[in-house]
Amino acid sequence: MAVRLQGLAPDHFAIASRRVMARCEELARVTATPGEIERVYLSPEHARVNRLAAEWMREVGMTTRQDAAGNQVGRLDASLQSSSEAAEFEGPALMLGSHLDTVPDAGRFDGIVGVLMALEVVRILRPLIDTLPFAIEVVAFSDEEGTRFGKALLGSSAVAGSWNDEWWTLEDADGTTLRQAFLEFGLDPGRIGEAARRPDELVGYLEAHIEQGPELDRRGESLAVVSSIASARRFQLSIEGEARHAGGTPYDLRHDALLGASEAALAVERICRAEHHIIGTVGQLEAFPGAVNIIPGEARMSLDLRGEFDGARDRVWNEIERELDEIMGRRGLRWRAHEIHNAPAVLCAPLLQDVVREGIVSTLPRGAAAPASIFSRAGHDGMAIGAITDVGMLFLRNPDGISHHPDESVSAGDVAVGIRALAESVLHLAAEPA
Amino acid sequence: MAVRLQGLAPDHFAIASRRVMARCEELARVTATPGEIERVYLSPEHARVNRLAAEWMREVGMTTRQDAAGNQVGRLDASLQSSSEAAEFEGPALMLGSHLDTVPDAGRFDGIVGVLMALEVVRILRPLIDTLPFAIEVVAFSDEEGTRFGKALLGSSAVAGSWNDEWWTLEDADGTTLRQAFLEFGLDPGRIGEAARRPDELVGYLEAHIEQGPELDRRGESLAVVSSIASARRFQLSIEGEARHAGGTPYDLRHDALLGASEAALAVERICRAEHHIIGTVGQLEAFPGAVNIIPGEARMSLDLRGEFDGARDRVWNEIERELDEIMGRRGLRWRAHEIHNAPAVLCAPLLQDVVREGIVSTLPRGAAAPASIFSRAGHDGMAIGAITDVGMLFLRNPDGISHHPDESVSAGDVAVGIRALAESVLHLAAEPA
Repeated sequence: MAVRLQGLAPDHFAIASRRVMARCEELARVTATPGEIERVYLSPEHARVNRLAAEWMREVGMTTRQDAAGNQVGRLDASLQSSSEAAEFEGPALMLGSHLDTVPDAGRFDGIVGVLMALEVVRILRPLIDTLPFAIEVVAFSDEEGTRFGKALLGSSAVAGSWNDEWWTLEDADGTTLRQAFLEFGLDPGRIGEAARRPDELVGYLEAHIEQGPELDRRGESLAVVSSIASARRFQLSIEGEARHAGGTPYDLRHDALLGASEAALAVERICRAEHHIIGTVGQLEAFPGAVNIIPGEARMSLDLRGEFDGARDRVWNEIERELDEIMGRRGLRWRAHEIHNAPAVLCAPLLQDVVREGIVSTLPRGAAAPASIFSRAGHDGMAIGAITDVGMLFLRNPDGISHHPDESVSAGDVAVGIRALAESVLHLAAEPA
Repeated sequence: MAVRLQGLAPDHFAIASRRVMARCEELARVTATPGEIERVYLSPEHARVNRLAAEWMREVGMTTRQDAAGNQVGRLDASLQSSSEAAEFEGPALMLGSHLDTVPDAGRFDGIVGVLMALEVVRILRPLIDTLPFAIEVVAFSDEEGTRFGKALLGSSAVAGSWNDEWWTLEDADGTTLRQAFLEFGLDPGRIGEAARRPDELVGYLEAHIEQGPELDRRGESLAVVSSIASARRFQLSIEGEARHAGGTPYDLRHDALLGASEAALAVERICRAEHHIIGTVGQLEAFPGAVNIIPGEARMSLDLRGEFDGARDRVWNEIERELDEIMGRRGLRWRAHEIHNAPAVLCAPLLQDVVREGIVSTLPRGAAAPASIFSRAGHDGMAIGAITDVGMLFLRNPDGISHHPDESVSAGDVAVGIRALAESVLHLAAEPA
């Protein structure tokens, strides 16, 4: 099948890559925080990037809509090629996409580059759309990071039909509920179910994403097949001791919640480091009342725990629980954990792993080593979408593995070869017997 | 000398103590935070308690003024006894006092009980004032805790003439500068020098205060002589690493500022615990950017270090510095310390230690053990006042040593005996040869 793209001019992918890189810069300027990149769910910045994405979708011939969860969707159908009207969406589609929301003080590429690469794949495949056995959709998911409401994958959960009505009362840092934010954005909470897609509408979901890790950079390779998306659990831990005067209270009368939290953070590191493919992170820690001369009576911390397999992840959590019991017992502290997120590992569909691998191979010189197969410790929209259709992912090299940081990067060369590999993957999938 | 007070009715001190306890409750209701006690420098609550204190000062015959730093001052002069006019302050005075400001979510007694006990001492000694070789002043210091501007002892530093003009630009949590707060309170920053007292105006400073530690409670004794006020240094520590994606970044590529801070907090505990009479507290710790799925790239923490002697305190700080170098070097982190407070130990004047001891002894049964002599790990206004006059302090038993906390307490019985001891101390001082 790869021959089909060999008719393209040699610099075709380089041009597409330059457009992707320029658009990443353009989207980076849509931010709530001047001098940084921050774009959260249901914000004015969310509306602005949706409008830009819709414009770019129409430019490559797609019909567009914003769904009931604020995801921006474009669709290219053989039957719609000559029509300027938005018609009923019908016939199964291959869904391509990623997300446009960001963490605070984010980089330019996490999620974004996958949406923009998908649009370039549509641009390349548009002349061939009549020959494909499926329509192509591109979805720019509206909330993958969970920055605003503390709950990740809201956009893709709506598409997967796994929206939970308990989420409506989630609040952002200003006390705005998710329901209020929907209304302020112009969305109707009562219609959230309309965002859900049925399995029979989809043939699969393919996503390109930067690795958010150093593996490809260490190997000196541009692209990898993703084997699975890690399982994750997130907790808010709360530790209670006794607030007392910093000067007057000798060590034997102290129940310092912050020292308990410090030991806990180090225990998480020690336990997870000793495991293979398990990683734990304390990203938030605060002491209360938080005065320079008062022993902290309370500490609150987050815990993000990820593993390739659910069983190992849960066994490690149990080990952390036992360790926290020991630490807090010894220090006369009480502790409790509130689980705020629990996502099982998602295995990428073997067929989609195969077509992504073939797509990458078609970009490599003959005789090159087989592409790496990597499991993703980071979460992705595919974790939610996996509930309704097969998921495949392509990783791009991420220099030094820096992500969720302004220094996050990807090279234009890797984006060019990634666009080609993704387009080839789609053609390989099209050639599979139904 | 003690015979002079034996003419008082046996329940005189109990009545005085009940008045002190009731007034502690009354002042506790003057708070910026409903349900908690919080009263900071130059706040509306500060103005309200100054008005109450002034009223109570006039009730025991004192002339009153609010000084240029917002301290509330009362004075009882032999020559002013029959005059209702505020006359020029003249002749040396014995200064009694403590402070009326609080930490956040404070107890009812820290500082407050010392001001109110001083007023009861004035009430008791007023009939004898013509026989004393000095006037008596009571000062309710306006800022001892440093809650609002992060700098402690602002009120007493103004009285000691050691105000530093660099403090004017200190900001509170809302970005209000100390200068603006002066103006909003109705004070003129240009007249701050008028709050300063000359050494020849004072014969000494005596303060009663709860211990803020468990020593007297453990001994089962009501009162102690304070030998010295601990030396203290305070630092803001800042630790820099690299903010990266929590899932994608393996342990060997992490430079987690929060784990460095956690190790630092535990190192402070380990190093100080191994020392005699040194205590270190990390009361504030925060991680940035503070997202559940981002490795902290920065952590900021406070360090409060106290010791009986300056040399030991500084040696311990040097040891902490070496330990932090090791921790941060090993983790690939950078760190720096900004010193925000440095107060040498203040030795209570031997003469005032003696008169306080005699005051306590006069309340004890014949043959009782000598009163304990305790060094104060907590800071007090005497640390600043020590620059212009001799300082003496009396400690009251503080059940379980709980302070800077709503459960802080002192018994009415101990306050009664404390009032008597303090009054006797003043008479012992009056009997000393000049």
